[in-house]
Amino acid sequence: REVQFITDPETIEHRSMELIAPYLAGLNLDEAATKVYSRIIHAAGDPDYANHIKIHPQAIAVGCKALRQGRPVFCDVEMVRTGINKRRLAEYGGQVHCLIGDEEVARQAKSSGITRAMAAMRTFGQDLDGAVVAIGNAPTALFEILRLMAETPVRPALIVGVPVGFVGASESKELLASSSPVPYITIQGNKGGSPIAAATLNALLYMPEPI
Amino acid sequence: REVQFITDPETIEHRSMELIAPYLAGLNLDEAATKVYSRIIHAAGDPDYANHIKIHPQAIAVGCKALRQGRPVFCDVEMVRTGINKRRLAEYGGQVHCLIGDEEVARQAKSSGITRAMAAMRTFGQDLDGAVVAIGNAPTALFEILRLMAETPVRPALIVGVPVGFVGASESKELLASSSPVPYITIQGNKGGSPIAAATLNALLYMPEPI
Repeated sequence: REVQFITDPETIEHRSMELIAPYLAGLNLDEAATKVYSRIIHAAGDPDYANHIKIHPQAIAVGCKALRQGRPVFCDVEMVRTGINKRRLAEYGGQVHCLIGDEEVARQAKSSGITRAMAAMRTFGQDLDGAVVAIGNAPTALFEILRLMAETPVRPALIVGVPVGFVGASESKELLASSSPVPYITIQGNKGGSPIAAATLNALLYMPEPI
Repeated sequence: REVQFITDPETIEHRSMELIAPYLAGLNLDEAATKVYSRIIHAAGDPDYANHIKIHPQAIAVGCKALRQGRPVFCDVEMVRTGINKRRLAEYGGQVHCLIGDEEVARQAKSSGITRAMAAMRTFGQDLDGAVVAIGNAPTALFEILRLMAETPVRPALIVGVPVGFVGASESKELLASSSPVPYITIQGNKGGSPIAAATLNALLYMPEPI
């Protein structure tokens, strides 16, 4: 049983991006968008994402700017926080915040009959202003962000809204794309998830300056 | 802008499983396998997984048994650890171990020109015996486990091997299915990832006794 495989991390990454490139060939993406698409497809092992990614024209620029200014990142679940390169973020002075495991949020969710992810967004409230939001799991969190923006003056710099699943995920992402007053990155349909949210944030964090 | 959506966590979960059921109808799965398939598809938002999941006939039984005996879980990346229900695992006396961020592992990886995930598995070594292994990200970690089993007497109870990507992932999972001396759960092809590994472990943790 002789198995040959690549063990050098840089070679693996480089070869991955080479293998993903053909899937993006027909899409007319600029260099920055290509990096976002590639990281998402890489994280999912699924080239089909190329057909469902939606990036608002200003999203990459405002996202990169906010992250470089050290604006906070707010996410719905711990897996998103875990996946974000927090060392790189900290170089810009930024931090990732997640309240899904917070006891007060859990109490609020239970007493209101809502999800903890939703209660967490409600608790962040006006702190979301100027921040980067990364929703990788819970459609309810994304619906809540959209409600907050409709009913209050809060305006995140960028919303990476890629919740996953069969109940509300697709609808929440459609509503994001059709009604968000701020730039967004999203995935049409049921697919998405924490690695997709984290990969998107990391693509922005790794973007060469100036974009 | 009146948007109706389900906000009760139990209703969301129940409705998700209902929506996934039709995709499993033709597969002749027993109740336990249905739960594993459903959680994986739920985590990915992608019914296509139904066609690529491979479960060794003893995998669910030995996995549930090992977890209930409090055997340790060893995983390749922190996102897998984050996604596993550690409270439930702790009720059985179990813990999740991950060394991807360990400084000594990083040194070893750099000096050997291998990935940190691979060096981490090598460091776990004989501790993997009787344990549950969950590989959600790194094909190199799965190759290393297979090498350890080929060259040493170490035998995990179960290997959940679902690394993701375009370089080695598919090959590592094929090799797992064709040559593992112990039961396994895997996904054929490039897809996989941390949420898939965590969802599989959680399906086993939530399995009603006796399976």
